[in-house]
Amino acid sequence: MSLYLGKNLQVSIFGQSHAPAIGVTVDGLPAGEAVDLEALERFLQRRAPGQDPTATARKEGDKPKILCGLLEGRTCGAPLAAVIENTNTRAQDYDQFQDIPRPGHADYTAHVRYGGFQDAAGGGHFSGRLTAPLCIAGAICIQILERRGIEIAAHVRTIAGVEDRPFDPMGEDLETLRALKSASFPVLDPAAEAKMRAVILEAKEQLDSVGGVVECIACGVPAGLGGPMFGGMESRLAAALFGVPAVKGVEFGAGFEAARLRGSENNDPFVIKNGAVSLKSNRAGGILGGITDGMPLLMRVAFKPTPSIGREQDSVSLTRKTPEKLKVHGRHDPCIAPRAVPVVEAAVAVVLLDALLS
Amino acid sequence: MSLYLGKNLQVSIFGQSHAPAIGVTVDGLPAGEAVDLEALERFLQRRAPGQDPTATARKEGDKPKILCGLLEGRTCGAPLAAVIENTNTRAQDYDQFQDIPRPGHADYTAHVRYGGFQDAAGGGHFSGRLTAPLCIAGAICIQILERRGIEIAAHVRTIAGVEDRPFDPMGEDLETLRALKSASFPVLDPAAEAKMRAVILEAKEQLDSVGGVVECIACGVPAGLGGPMFGGMESRLAAALFGVPAVKGVEFGAGFEAARLRGSENNDPFVIKNGAVSLKSNRAGGILGGITDGMPLLMRVAFKPTPSIGREQDSVSLTRKTPEKLKVHGRHDPCIAPRAVPVVEAAVAVVLLDALLS
Amino acid sequence: MSLYLGKNLQVSIFGQSHAPAIGVTVDGLPAGEAVDLEALERFLQRRAPGQDPTATARKEGDKPKILCGLLEGRTCGAPLAAVIENTNTRAQDYDQFQDIPRPGHADYTAHVRYGGFQDAAGGGHFSGRLTAPLCIAGAICIQILERRGIEIAAHVRTIAGVEDRPFDPMGEDLETLRALKSASFPVLDPAAEAKMRAVILEAKEQLDSVGGVVECIACGVPAGLGGPMFGGMESRLAAALFGVPAVKGVEFGAGFEAARLRGSENNDPFVIKNGAVSLKSNRAGGILGGITDGMPLLMRVAFKPTPSIGREQDSVSLTRKTPEKLKVHGRHDPCIAPRAVPVVEAAVAVVLLDALLS
Amino acid sequence: MSLYLGKNLQVSIFGQSHAPAIGVTVDGLPAGEAVDLEALERFLQRRAPGQDPTATARKEGDKPKILCGLLEGRTCGAPLAAVIENTNTRAQDYDQFQDIPRPGHADYTAHVRYGGFQDAAGGGHFSGRLTAPLCIAGAICIQILERRGIEIAAHVRTIAGVEDRPFDPMGEDLETLRALKSASFPVLDPAAEAKMRAVILEAKEQLDSVGGVVECIACGVPAGLGGPMFGGMESRLAAALFGVPAVKGVEFGAGFEAARLRGSENNDPFVIKNGAVSLKSNRAGGILGGITDGMPLLMRVAFKPTPSIGREQDSVSLTRKTPEKLKVHGRHDPCIAPRAVPVVEAAVAVVLLDALLS
Repeated sequence: MSLYLGKNLQVSIFGQSHAPAIGVTVDGLPAGEAVDLEALERFLQRRAPGQDPTATARKEGDKPKILCGLLEGRTCGAPLAAVIENTNTRAQDYDQFQDIPRPGHADYTAHVRYGGFQDAAGGGHFSGRLTAPLCIAGAICIQILERRGIEIAAHVRTIAGVEDRPFDPMGEDLETLRALKSASFPVLDPAAEAKMRAVILEAKEQLDSVGGVVECIACGVPAGLGGPMFGGMESRLAAALFGVPAVKGVEFGAGFEAARLRGSENNDPFVIKNGAVSLKSNRAGGILGGITDGMPLLMRVAFKPTPSIGREQDSVSLTRKTPEKLKVHGRHDPCIAPRAVPVVEAAVAVVLLDALLS
Repeated sequence: MSLYLGKNLQVSIFGQSHAPAIGVTVDGLPAGEAVDLEALERFLQRRAPGQDPTATARKEGDKPKILCGLLEGRTCGAPLAAVIENTNTRAQDYDQFQDIPRPGHADYTAHVRYGGFQDAAGGGHFSGRLTAPLCIAGAICIQILERRGIEIAAHVRTIAGVEDRPFDPMGEDLETLRALKSASFPVLDPAAEAKMRAVILEAKEQLDSVGGVVECIACGVPAGLGGPMFGGMESRLAAALFGVPAVKGVEFGAGFEAARLRGSENNDPFVIKNGAVSLKSNRAGGILGGITDGMPLLMRVAFKPTPSIGREQDSVSLTRKTPEKLKVHGRHDPCIAPRAVPVVEAAVAVVLLDALLS
Repeated sequence: MSLYLGKNLQVSIFGQSHAPAIGVTVDGLPAGEAVDLEALERFLQRRAPGQDPTATARKEGDKPKILCGLLEGRTCGAPLAAVIENTNTRAQDYDQFQDIPRPGHADYTAHVRYGGFQDAAGGGHFSGRLTAPLCIAGAICIQILERRGIEIAAHVRTIAGVEDRPFDPMGEDLETLRALKSASFPVLDPAAEAKMRAVILEAKEQLDSVGGVVECIACGVPAGLGGPMFGGMESRLAAALFGVPAVKGVEFGAGFEAARLRGSENNDPFVIKNGAVSLKSNRAGGILGGITDGMPLLMRVAFKPTPSIGREQDSVSLTRKTPEKLKVHGRHDPCIAPRAVPVVEAAVAVVLLDALLS
Repeated sequence: MSLYLGKNLQVSIFGQSHAPAIGVTVDGLPAGEAVDLEALERFLQRRAPGQDPTATARKEGDKPKILCGLLEGRTCGAPLAAVIENTNTRAQDYDQFQDIPRPGHADYTAHVRYGGFQDAAGGGHFSGRLTAPLCIAGAICIQILERRGIEIAAHVRTIAGVEDRPFDPMGEDLETLRALKSASFPVLDPAAEAKMRAVILEAKEQLDSVGGVVECIACGVPAGLGGPMFGGMESRLAAALFGVPAVKGVEFGAGFEAARLRGSENNDPFVIKNGAVSLKSNRAGGILGGITDGMPLLMRVAFKPTPSIGREQDSVSLTRKTPEKLKVHGRHDPCIAPRAVPVVEAAVAVVLLDALLS
């Protein structure tokens, strides 16, 4: 199911890499919200390939077409649907993957799940390209959230062990967040960018790829969103984030590091600030008991290295049950993380708007 | 919402720490499945307090009463409901938390979310005690899964940085897994136990607490369960696991470590084994593209240190908006991780049975 | 699935006729709402058997026990759970139905659905007794709705063709509605009561049963609740009402009669009334395009005659595949409709509160 | 929400009457199912306007475009999405309805629900045109169901009181069902057609409209589908059927007539037929306790008269709060029922396939 079923928002993503189109429907958006289509396209450009030397040179026609849900530039209460037409015709490169699955991809598991009827070309419905429709949904949610004082931004926290400075858990100023959103390679520390680019390009030259961690912050989130147990914000956010292809880990606040701490170190003390309840630190990542506490939401998302690599790999023939060698041709991102930055923001935005509408 | 809404299984958890009872309903269990109530109680004993010197000495009457859903020891197709009566009366210790929230707990966020009407005693519906009903649901699912050849086990992977040996991602033998499930302190390496006990008891003596990581494996899971994006197994498992109180991170397979690897290191090559498709390694944790690949499922879950500590902490009065000092009295686990082991198994079992029933 | 999955409210009903208990969980109630337990019990008494000579003389201990979800008489945000213990032990009368299904009951279909493992005693989970937990949920919703100016009432519209006067679709005064809710046999026209009682008792004497129609009105519902297509109020209400055992038809406003009318007769003209938009008539039953229009909601629900009758009926042995004769012993309602009146109100209340919370 | 959220199938309908496109996504279709696009288009032609003198002469370009979900003519496991482009530009006729709502339409309620931001042109998302995407989903489900021996057909049972003969509740032969599906005016009794056409055309000449009842049968449905209470087949079917615009009543089997019968008349006795359990009659409409009993499913759906009529009607100005007169210009169906026949089949097919996939 490629349906994100929020309480108030439903986001349904459809398409295959080489089908006539990919797209998304978003149901439950509040009516009367202006949608800035140029801002939406700029957002999509952030994940589009071909924007940066570290990314694939492949071009996608990511121009979305809004089919319905808007009237004179505003949401009208009806479901919004948008499509991106695929201009690429079915590439021959992919024909083999129906029989010889690419390691690290869904070729084999989709084959089992769908009894051999899956569309393997370009990864089909499992392609990273399906994050474009998610970004359409997210971009619209972000516009609505920003009008309510909520600002979401993400950066490349690490690439193959090279680190950017972390977000200040107490919050970042608006200027810093907005700068990230206009950067072609979003990091907080300019020095990190050069090092990260170097490790990515090194991997690329060696026909290999690298993984990375994206860190996301959401400032201005009011206290009181979410609920206990499976309705908690961590559950909702993680369900959306693990829906992004290649994500293998999600943590909030201190996350795995919290497991090394003592309670006296990890607990965030309450304080009175400007006459209101606040917290002195933010190791909880803005969520206590599944409910937002008024501090910035803070989370990190681990992306595995791009499974498509130019090197020869071991695989098998699904029909002949023989070992086979495989090389993945074509142009692929040597690192997903930089292009995943807006995708993470989009997933977080969908969940936050859904929670806010309750 | 304390409802786990699977496609086929719905698990609804109810209760507050000091309400007359806590309990669970499970809808969608296949009919005709034997439920061994003694095995169920043994499973619950694994999370019950007072079992081990590292855990709280507080006793809970965790004896569950099955209200319906069984006929002559077998599931009858109707929803199963079970309750555990609370024998503790409302403790005075907790009365203050309605006004002075405990750091690291949901006292404050529940106050905001429920407008001051929340039941703060013992954490109310946010109490770790609510994992007992989850264990009832999980224990029943585990019995059904074991009859289908699926074995779930977990162990304490780390406590405050002290490590047990990790699970072999290619699988562990049944004997090892079953030994974990009868251990009072479930680790793979006996040497780790002593060190972990030491750091826990040291924290306890210092009126403090420590966090830990629980690692869980599920062997015998067939390939083909799950689906793309938000219907993927990582999304489903993470949504359930983050529903467990105190969880702040979840990762699958190589997880965050994958973000440091190269594609050529992280991809699991396909091989032919006994005439069938298999994988040479398992850095994917048994899930590719959201769908199981036939390898063991492997995940790690980070638990923060118990927020209840005996030391004085900074808090505030919600009504007076003044800074206050707070000491949490009562008997609390200095570390949640060991008792969380069966809870993690339970959450995983619910998700797996739901996926298997599709 | 015995789960009513509203957008904001989830009502999960559990139990079998002869299990230790039946009950309900209600998640999503707004926090801070007073629950009058005496009023709740009075509501339950309206559907309890043994209240009226036309009903079964069988007694049920319908005293509910609230397990959680309340704090000092108010909802606390946590799921509310309530149980009614079954005092009846397993009756021998029912043992045969595991093999010889009662016509008109779910004995046979449950046998097929659950592979012979169903609990057939007293109809198991399919028993009309399971409407008691629905009434618990409904009674609480009604109390909350009444504080918001919404009044729901129902009456016996017809029994075996004997008619009560219909509700005035433009609304009834509060006094009339409240009188219905304290009547042991709720009709608008006292003359109808005598005739209805007569046909019921005549059927009873002849070891037979009769069907009836319950009409329900909800006054004070604001315009703007609901949505298009499958999210429309008719869809939501019908899904809940057909969940009540023995319901075979549901219609709104003019309902099936509308199919005989012309557009010029059936359209409700808009008018200005006290400076606000209103409607001159209410053949739509208060719902246009799935959304409430500010007029009273009006619906009728057809109940089939009680399938349990004392006469000999034709059935079969499921194991021997032979024709068999069957007499249903025990005390059964010769007509369900009068006792179904509060059940219909309860189902409507759950749906309305859910819609109102959006 | 225009989402039909089945357990296994999710159907999400989007579009407005004058938006660039309308369409549908269907998630959960089994993989490997052939989809005959010509048969799909023939099915859509049955609801298309301009096919019959009793229907509107307005032409719609109902040619669907499949965007994804198919590979070489078969479902591939990925969500299927299809759109129908709207060639009509925004008509001036509708501009006024943003301020002066048409009686019997959703213009006013959508205005309240969406705060004046709704797309009123042509009824926007509330237009009967949105049943075309439902028919796309239904047509695909029907093809899959037919391969499993399930045949769904409907006919015009009554128009303004003129009756066709009812379906034989024990089932109709395949030839009869298929003849209905190729008829331009689907009735069982040819004599009924002439009379029905006459009353429709008479209403049309008088600038008025008439209502009607559509009866639907599903033969070959196996016993055991569905479940108790809110998961029952009546609840699921009714939720889908009331999602079709203009439906005001739904009944199963004997339906409202059952409320006039005695138990001894209404109960369907069990019999042994060819060595298997069967039923001697089918007043239950194939559903007992929410679960199919192996007999044909039988239901009737009441459609109100088309609210769009050429006569002058009373309405109001929403902005000026003044009474206004209104004439609905344009070409409208004087009776919805004949064109609704395939829409009812489609809704039933979606629910049945969803239940069958469990």
